[in-house]
Amino acid sequence: MGEFDLIARYFTRPTARAVLGVGDDCALLQPAPGTQMAISCDMLVEGRHFFADVDPFTLGHKSLAVNLSDLAACGATPLAFTLALALPRADDAWLAPFSRGLLALADAHGCELVGGDTTQGPLNICITVFGEVPVVNGQSQALLRSGARAGDDVYVSGTLGDARLALEALRGTQALPAAVLAQARQRLEQPTPRVALGQALRGVASAAIDVSDGLLGDLQHILKASTVGATIDTSIAIDLIACYDQPDWATGLISLKNQLEYVLAGGDDYELAFTAPASAREAVQAAARQARTPVTRIGRIESEAGLRLIDGQGNTLTRNFASFDHFA
Amino acid sequence: MGEFDLIARYFTRPTARAVLGVGDDCALLQPAPGTQMAISCDMLVEGRHFFADVDPFTLGHKSLAVNLSDLAACGATPLAFTLALALPRADDAWLAPFSRGLLALADAHGCELVGGDTTQGPLNICITVFGEVPVVNGQSQALLRSGARAGDDVYVSGTLGDARLALEALRGTQALPAAVLAQARQRLEQPTPRVALGQALRGVASAAIDVSDGLLGDLQHILKASTVGATIDTSIAIDLIACYDQPDWATGLISLKNQLEYVLAGGDDYELAFTAPASAREAVQAAARQARTPVTRIGRIESEAGLRLIDGQGNTLTRNFASFDHFA
Repeated sequence: MGEFDLIARYFTRPTARAVLGVGDDCALLQPAPGTQMAISCDMLVEGRHFFADVDPFTLGHKSLAVNLSDLAACGATPLAFTLALALPRADDAWLAPFSRGLLALADAHGCELVGGDTTQGPLNICITVFGEVPVVNGQSQALLRSGARAGDDVYVSGTLGDARLALEALRGTQALPAAVLAQARQRLEQPTPRVALGQALRGVASAAIDVSDGLLGDLQHILKASTVGATIDTSIAIDLIACYDQPDWATGLISLKNQLEYVLAGGDDYELAFTAPASAREAVQAAARQARTPVTRIGRIESEAGLRLIDGQGNTLTRNFASFDHFA
Repeated sequence: MGEFDLIARYFTRPTARAVLGVGDDCALLQPAPGTQMAISCDMLVEGRHFFADVDPFTLGHKSLAVNLSDLAACGATPLAFTLALALPRADDAWLAPFSRGLLALADAHGCELVGGDTTQGPLNICITVFGEVPVVNGQSQALLRSGARAGDDVYVSGTLGDARLALEALRGTQALPAAVLAQARQRLEQPTPRVALGQALRGVASAAIDVSDGLLGDLQHILKASTVGATIDTSIAIDLIACYDQPDWATGLISLKNQLEYVLAGGDDYELAFTAPASAREAVQAAARQARTPVTRIGRIESEAGLRLIDGQGNTLTRNFASFDHFA
């Protein structure tokens, strides 16, 4: 199988919304009048972002999911994406499930594959995704990191910490019952980008980010961009780990210390962390219902810089949590 | 140096045209009314696209140049790009010249770096580039591969074969005087994307492609997309190798066989191959003058499928030339 056969077999499909898709020097998109184009790009590397023996179907899913999660954080509607792929060899047994996983998620979000590149090399998956954000009365409806204000509430969607729990179990540093591992592993390998929630929060949330490197580290980006601080109630956040819903879960299997680490700094959650004025609490819950995605209020934005953690009694936690950094 | 320091130090600059650049979950572009967005994506891998010891400044240049070349083939005006970078380590001595080479070419074309990703991994550079193409009276002005018609002339811009000549010299399979190698190496390592020519050919050329895998292989893409054939006069094409302009060039240093291979199938030229009706010969030359880029007429499109090569006497050449294929 040559390069062009590979592209034709696995990655070329008719486009519905794009003017021109795979097969020319460029793809052509025609943005709707009065919209901005949101663009994000993520690169996944074997051994860093996924294990070498990961199921290629779930890897295809995750490769696009992490990009759709960035569109979600911006409140954008997915339109299209490009895929650049470095492969050790052109292997049908890998390409067929990888492309199925990738395109199934793409279809679920109406996000068309419009172009890309393939080359031989150490496995590397780079996706650039394009979405649309409306401009209303000259105002962009994009959710940015910079809009949080003192007095705003801090929220997070869905569940936190299960992806990291699965990672630790797969690394052998955390014992887990099979049913719990299966559930947690699903969160690690097939995260759900909160695309509908991001769109529903346009005009409601004041700032948003997706949780990829760990909740606290990612919240810090909002605080820095908005020049504010925050206090987070860890007694609420710690319950956001989903695995405790498992009927056969044995309490105490994860130490409290580790559970806090997984939830607050685990990474790979692909939930949305966002802020909204206290006056918008009803609107936030309405957006959550509309998007069928639970959201939990975990803290408050303050004018004093810094991120403060409290327990259920309001006492300050002094522990530090490191956010994921590829070069730290 | 951590991941975010690295991005801040080398890849974050104020944007002029983009609504939002590096530093949020997404970049935001506001396309001009009545335009389409042209998108292309190329991935460069160490050992495949460049030598491990290549000058990082020229690598930065080339990484963007190959993408701008795709915009040129489409007739698009460059707007912005994203950069995803996998690096073995965060190394100032590499990042500083790489980013200088990259951003110097970006600035020369008014093409803004608006986002991207950095991760640790085997060196891999993935750029996605965005350009603008006007739509006039409902008609996209993009140059496509599919517009060639029987009777059209076939042209190529600039020079061909020098990049491959340099590659063979660096591999040790071709002896070259130092001055000739220096000139040829410039073509290999710092190709000139024909951006102005592509734009000048809008409304003039009937089809276009950039020459990255070798002239004949890339021309085949036009023939296939346009369901036509062509005859190419190799006696004209063979003179397009630039190194013969060197005063100290010793005739005969390259065998005629190799010279033909370098010119017709060398790859890495980043010239434009394009077609235009015979009635547009004046307009083609006017576009070439406007873009200060020489173009040479090398053949003709025919209704009979296939690519035929003739010598200066009109005799058919039966030799086959392989186009570059990453998985062949």
